[in-house]
Order: sequence, then C-alpha cells, then structure tokens
Amino acid sequence: MMDAEAFTARLVEEGAAHYHDQHPFHQRMHRGDLSNRQLQLWVENRYYYQARIPIKDAIILSKSEDAAFRRMWIHRLQDHDGADANSGGLAQWLNLAEAVGLDREKTAAFGNVLPGVRFACDAYVDLVRQSPLLVAVASSLTELFAPDLMSARIAAWEKHYPWVGGEALAYFRGRVTRARRDGDEGLDFVLRNAATDSLQAACIAALHRKTQVLWHLLDCLTLAG
Amino acid sequence: MMDAEAFTARLVEEGAAHYHDQHPFHQRMHRGDLSNRQLQLWVENRYYYQARIPIKDAIILSKSEDAAFRRMWIHRLQDHDGADANSGGLAQWLNLAEAVGLDREKTAAFGNVLPGVRFACDAYVDLVRQSPLLVAVASSLTELFAPDLMSARIAAWEKHYPWVGGEALAYFRGRVTRARRDGDEGLDFVLRNAATDSLQAACIAALHRKTQVLWHLLDCLTLAG
Repeated sequence: MMDAEAFTARLVEEGAAHYHDQHPFHQRMHRGDLSNRQLQLWVENRYYYQARIPIKDAIILSKSEDAAFRRMWIHRLQDHDGADANSGGLAQWLNLAEAVGLDREKTAAFGNVLPGVRFACDAYVDLVRQSPLLVAVASSLTELFAPDLMSARIAAWEKHYPWVGGEALAYFRGRVTRARRDGDEGLDFVLRNAATDSLQAACIAALHRKTQVLWHLLDCLTLAG
Repeated sequence: MMDAEAFTARLVEEGAAHYHDQHPFHQRMHRGDLSNRQLQLWVENRYYYQARIPIKDAIILSKSEDAAFRRMWIHRLQDHDGADANSGGLAQWLNLAEAVGLDREKTAAFGNVLPGVRFACDAYVDLVRQSPLLVAVASSLTELFAPDLMSARIAAWEKHYPWVGGEALAYFRGRVTRARRDGDEGLDFVLRNAATDSLQAACIAALHRKTQVLWHLLDCLTLAG
C-alpha cells in the first residue's frame, strides 16, 4: 500500500496521462481551429455530460451514511442546479449554448446528442451507481485537472472565438475556483478512505475509466466532423 | 383513470387506513402507557428509519432529469442533515435520544436496532431505488398524515412523559410545518404525473407499501417488549 504522498502522485499521474486536454479535438478547440459548427457540436453534446453531474452527485450522496459527508458534498448539486432557473451551472451552460447560436430548448432536450456521447456519459453514471462510495468519489478526481484547463479555455475562447462574448464563459470562470475546491475535497476523502492496496488500485482504475468517458466524448465529436 | 379529486381521495383513504397512528404500540405511546425503556426502544429503533430519509431522498434526486424538481426536493436532505453537525433533523433526533436516557453515539451507530426494523427500513430504500421517480415520490405521501400526528405527539409527550423535557421535542415541532409542505409538494407532483390508470394504481400501491414499513417497525417493537 502506498503512503498518501505516493498515492496522490499515482492518481495525478494516471489522471494527467489520460485527461482530455490532450485530445486532438480539444487541442484544436484551444488553438482556435474549430469551425463555429464544431464549437456548437461540442457545446450541445457536452451538455449531456453536464446534465449527468447532479444525477451522479445525488447517487454519491445516497451512498453515504455520514451526514457530515453529505453536508460537504451537497453544494455540488446546488452548483449545477442553482437556487432558481436562471442561476447554476446548467443554466450557465444553456446561456453558452445560446451564445454559440444553438437553440436553448433543443439543447436542454438533448436534441442533437450523439449516441456514443450518451453511451459514455451513461456509463459514467452507471460506474458511480455500481461502485462503493470511495470508488465513486475517486471517479470524480478529474476535477484535479479542471482548474488549469478552465483557465486555459477562457483565454483560448476570448482570443479565438471572441464572437461568443465574455459573459457566456461564466460557467468556465466559476469552475476555476469550484473545481479546485471539489478536487481537494474529493482527494482528501480518497486519501483518508483508501486504506488498502486493493482500494487504492480501485480508485486509480475508476479515475482512469472516468478519463475514458471524457476522452470518448471528444472521439465522437471527431467522428461527427 | 380517476380525476385529481378522486385520486387524491383514494390516496388519502389508502394512507389513512393503514397509517401507523393506529398501531397499538403507537396508541399506547400517545396514551402515556409506554415504560421509559419502551420509549427508548422506540427512539433508538426509529432513528434507523430517520437516517434512511436523506438516503432515499438523495436516490429520488438522482432519478430526476429536471433541475427544477431537484431544486424543490433538495431541502429535504438539508432538513435532516442540517447546515452543521448540531442542526438538522438527525441531530435533533439524537438530542431526543439523549433526553430519553440513551447513549448518543450508540444510537447514532444503530447499536440496538432490531433486525426486523432494519429489514423494513432497508426495504423502503430499496422500493425507492427500484421504482420510477413518480412511484418513489408517491411512497413519501405518508407525509400527508404526519402533521396531525406530530401535533398529537407533542401534546401527548408533554402530558405523559414530562421528564423528557420540551426542548427534546424540537424534531416533532419542526415536522408539523415541514411535513405539511413536503406532503403538499409530493402530492402535487403525483397528481401532475400519474397520468394513466396504471400509474395511479402504482402510486397507491407504493403508499400502501410505505405504510407497511412504518407499521412493521412498531410490530417489531411490540415483539421486543
């Protein structure tokens, strides 16, 4: 069994090696090489992933017997659902959809989501549903890499896709801080609870599986053109 | 298919016919006929049920694709988990446990929960997990009967078990208003979504099953003496 430092390093290594920031589609996005339609395709398909987040976080809540854990985790649902219909990460994403020229209602209804994107995102929810709490939490640790990616994305979009408008990037801006807090909370829980070699291995495997979900989403967009 | 009025009447009829307020153990409690040990037995076993509530409500949250529904439902978790370790319904119940002379930690660890109580409460969580959202919500409609029962319980405990102290009844007091709001929200959702005869029948059956859970809990206490 690895100590906390070595285990953290392995998690970071595993996540960084497979994180979707290195996917060619994502790199084209950040270089400014996506067409407007490709940008739309990303926004409307990624919304299906976004809409899975409160669902998988509610499943994670349901797996805990510990009110203190649930108090710590519940803000994730509120971050995405908001206090009303106009706030929250899902509403911000639909604002982004409108800003790139998509129909808000059609995006919200997943009208143009690719089958493979649905398969991958549903597989993520199912991984969380079938896993013990620890492993379900570990699958969220891609959040460790999200703050840097969000910062890079804001800069890239402002530079290469200025027509979208800065206000539409509110979700990315909010995630810089929130993903850092979420990643730290998740990592702390995983370090405290992965108390055997096989639990540590299960956590690493779950994080790997999660990177495959994010990666496959971009594979599907690549195939769709 | 019944109209809203007839369907509401059937739900109320089904719930009222089997609600645990009529259970002999419960009637003895409200008549002041329970021994101190029997009161403790009820408090520590019922805590296992209480602790299932945020879990089943998180499962219900995870079944909804609708952020507006989740925003409406999420307060149920917060009602029980609280904003910190000293607030919330579960903490209030543990205050009650201490007030009736139980050990707080042992109660929180379900140290004296009867096997049949565990089976029934776990069956409730499983019913919610296995059911579609509508039916899961319908199983919560025993809340329609809770406000009257809570009011009666406060009066009965103040009269018959004054040694417990009024402050320890905070959970019951809070539930008078909260269960009314919860019951109204749940009923409204069920009326709007049970759009076929078979869905209405499934809702009535789920409410009946839920009354059996609450009833069986008291059967187990009766057997335990």
